[in-house]
Amino acid sequence: MKRWLINNGTFLTMDELQPQFTGWLAVDGTRIVAMGEGPAPQHELNAAAEIIDGTGYLYMPGLVNTHGHAAMSLLRGVGGDLALQDWLQNHMWPMEAKFTGDDVYWGTALSAVEMIKSGTTTFVDMYDHMNRVAEVVETSGMRASLTRGVIGLCPEDVQRAKLADAIGFAKDWHGAADGRIRVMISPHAPYTCPPDFITKFVQAAHDLDLPMHTHMSETIAEVEQNVRDYGCRPVEHLDRLGMFSRPTLVAHGVHLTDEEIALLAERKVAVSHNPVSNLKLASGVARVPDLLKAGVTVSLGTDGAASNNNLNLFQEITTAALIHKGVSGDPTVIPASEALRMGTLYGARSIGLEGVTGQLKPGLKADIIALSTNKSHFVPHTDLISHVVYGSTGNDVSHVWVDGRQLLRNGQLLTLDEERIMAEAQRCYERLRG
Amino acid sequence: MKRWLINNGTFLTMDELQPQFTGWLAVDGTRIVAMGEGPAPQHELNAAAEIIDGTGYLYMPGLVNTHGHAAMSLLRGVGGDLALQDWLQNHMWPMEAKFTGDDVYWGTALSAVEMIKSGTTTFVDMYDHMNRVAEVVETSGMRASLTRGVIGLCPEDVQRAKLADAIGFAKDWHGAADGRIRVMISPHAPYTCPPDFITKFVQAAHDLDLPMHTHMSETIAEVEQNVRDYGCRPVEHLDRLGMFSRPTLVAHGVHLTDEEIALLAERKVAVSHNPVSNLKLASGVARVPDLLKAGVTVSLGTDGAASNNNLNLFQEITTAALIHKGVSGDPTVIPASEALRMGTLYGARSIGLEGVTGQLKPGLKADIIALSTNKSHFVPHTDLISHVVYGSTGNDVSHVWVDGRQLLRNGQLLTLDEERIMAEAQRCYERLRG
Repeated sequence: MKRWLINNGTFLTMDELQPQFTGWLAVDGTRIVAMGEGPAPQHELNAAAEIIDGTGYLYMPGLVNTHGHAAMSLLRGVGGDLALQDWLQNHMWPMEAKFTGDDVYWGTALSAVEMIKSGTTTFVDMYDHMNRVAEVVETSGMRASLTRGVIGLCPEDVQRAKLADAIGFAKDWHGAADGRIRVMISPHAPYTCPPDFITKFVQAAHDLDLPMHTHMSETIAEVEQNVRDYGCRPVEHLDRLGMFSRPTLVAHGVHLTDEEIALLAERKVAVSHNPVSNLKLASGVARVPDLLKAGVTVSLGTDGAASNNNLNLFQEITTAALIHKGVSGDPTVIPASEALRMGTLYGARSIGLEGVTGQLKPGLKADIIALSTNKSHFVPHTDLISHVVYGSTGNDVSHVWVDGRQLLRNGQLLTLDEERIMAEAQRCYERLRG
Repeated sequence: MKRWLINNGTFLTMDELQPQFTGWLAVDGTRIVAMGEGPAPQHELNAAAEIIDGTGYLYMPGLVNTHGHAAMSLLRGVGGDLALQDWLQNHMWPMEAKFTGDDVYWGTALSAVEMIKSGTTTFVDMYDHMNRVAEVVETSGMRASLTRGVIGLCPEDVQRAKLADAIGFAKDWHGAADGRIRVMISPHAPYTCPPDFITKFVQAAHDLDLPMHTHMSETIAEVEQNVRDYGCRPVEHLDRLGMFSRPTLVAHGVHLTDEEIALLAERKVAVSHNPVSNLKLASGVARVPDLLKAGVTVSLGTDGAASNNNLNLFQEITTAALIHKGVSGDPTVIPASEALRMGTLYGARSIGLEGVTGQLKPGLKADIIALSTNKSHFVPHTDLISHVVYGSTGNDVSHVWVDGRQLLRNGQLLTLDEERIMAEAQRCYERLRG
């Protein structure tokens, strides 16, 4: 296993004990093995097969995108600025119904290109044809938590087949790609899955010892429907169905009562906040300051590119830091440092990867991104975290490593053929459009 | 005067008659002289001294940033995430009080670097030492509407000197730099200028035949103070003082009643919407959909970098398109095309430059930016306006021209020394910090 070292870099670690320093960091194989302030000690320099000069770069943990549907980048820009049901029923669903495994492969690859280039090293993906998504993860070198998202509004035999598919995918792929792929179990949402179908997924998650992921309380309409159909709001509903007996990550959580927030905190349910998607689809503004105050782990997700329309998690970090100030009237909520933790450490925590990724720290996997800071928007050198959160965009990302392997060098992808992927994605879109 | 031509480009014109086409555009001297769909005619090719291959580029009007304080980029990242009064009184004002002409020059130059590189060709600037700001405009090749912003909470002799400075600046610089510099007259805000002082500025604007610019209704506190001090809200107050008898652009306009919106529309007062600054400082969310519905011209501004913290107007375009959907609950408000007009055509209209800049159209000045679209976030090729507004960031800007002169080529500045400016700005900041 190769040992290498970054010298003279500036590091934002997301580790409270040593949050920011200028110094060195050593990687051996897939892991960070040592780091420190100041010049690297001679024995570290001697031990390194390669020494990277970190001058002019800011190193931080790779970002963790905790909710998305990567293959939907094939529908980027389709049916924008429409009401949700019109967008879904007349634009998204008819085209998604035509998706083949090939479409999922190239759509996901297109998303992987964009995610790596904008600094995301780990992503959560919920879709269909998940074996093809897993192939992209394997090839690209990214880290991912993947899950077959199942809609249960179908006959019982189809339900059975879908559940079997989700379980089969978990058995085939959990722990694959040197452990970079993990699997979650996902009924799509309380409003798209009957209660007895959800309980089957809960059982499967227990049997396989896997965490769960679902959409929850994204819109007022679905919350109202839940109350009409089941006599309670979604949090209580899912709690009754036993979902929260498993480690669970819910996406969106826009419309929550105080009682629901308290229950999520008690059950240690994590929330993936998708601020850009929630704004674009006019779903509303999640109560993130209240969730954080209650002790809920809140991370960030882009959602699919069709409702965003990019997969640049820096935009979610910036938006999360800005919008809750403006809406609450309090400029001190979600300070820059907290928004950055939401995009890194809390992302890892949301999917059971705290201690694996999301921080720069000896013992953790070397999932590292480097931002080039010799740019006008990083001048003057005042508060680096503020510059990253409010001033930067994902376009400052120059280098990316996952598991100690470099995926991006000077903005060039090393594991994926960007030109071919863009051409294949365009071809897929044109066929789907028919 | 050199004649040149872009061939095989994709053009977003902001002109309703021909909003988008793939074709050619010819520039002679400072102006666009012809354009059309399809391949350029032979006589156009023959007439051009230079032919630029536009394949893979999207050409659109340069962006118009209608409110800012460019020199404040020296305070980027200072005192972030604080309550407004703490931020102003304990961080901004003590350092701004030390600003010399040299600081204003280098701070503005730093901002010019960032603005050009992110596609802004015209900017409004309100500050002090405005002759030094004008020098940067002259050197950089940008277009600007400049104004000495005067705070009137001072003895009468100081007031007189400040007014004389504002008038002197207007006389010296209006129409300078081949007409690229225009001047506005600016009492800083109703809450920082006594009424009789504001009327003197109104008189000066009449005497000089110049438009006016001021901050208005940014926070609830200042509106309440206006009511306490003058018995009416800011719009009525400024109307009574005669300001709206001049073409006027007000910055922010966050807290407005229906009656105020109607009066702004009647008086043809334009509003510079600064969504990122308003969110970051927790000022609130302006009623932009209502303003547009009432017929008010709403454009976009970054405000100073200290409250943003960048000057990338693409972020304002994106944020304006997103936030009003999320806050109103209506995903059809401020569609992408309208957000883009706010950043271009409406910007020009706000400052009396409609027919000069803000559109691609024969007869207008050649203020053009080119975005490189051979990128994953522009794939698949669906709705180009949607891709620009929701998917892109200013980092796709590769080329910039103002008045037909190229200021940026392949991301490299042609008129400004970026490395030196960053070093000088850092030096200024360190001296100011003391």
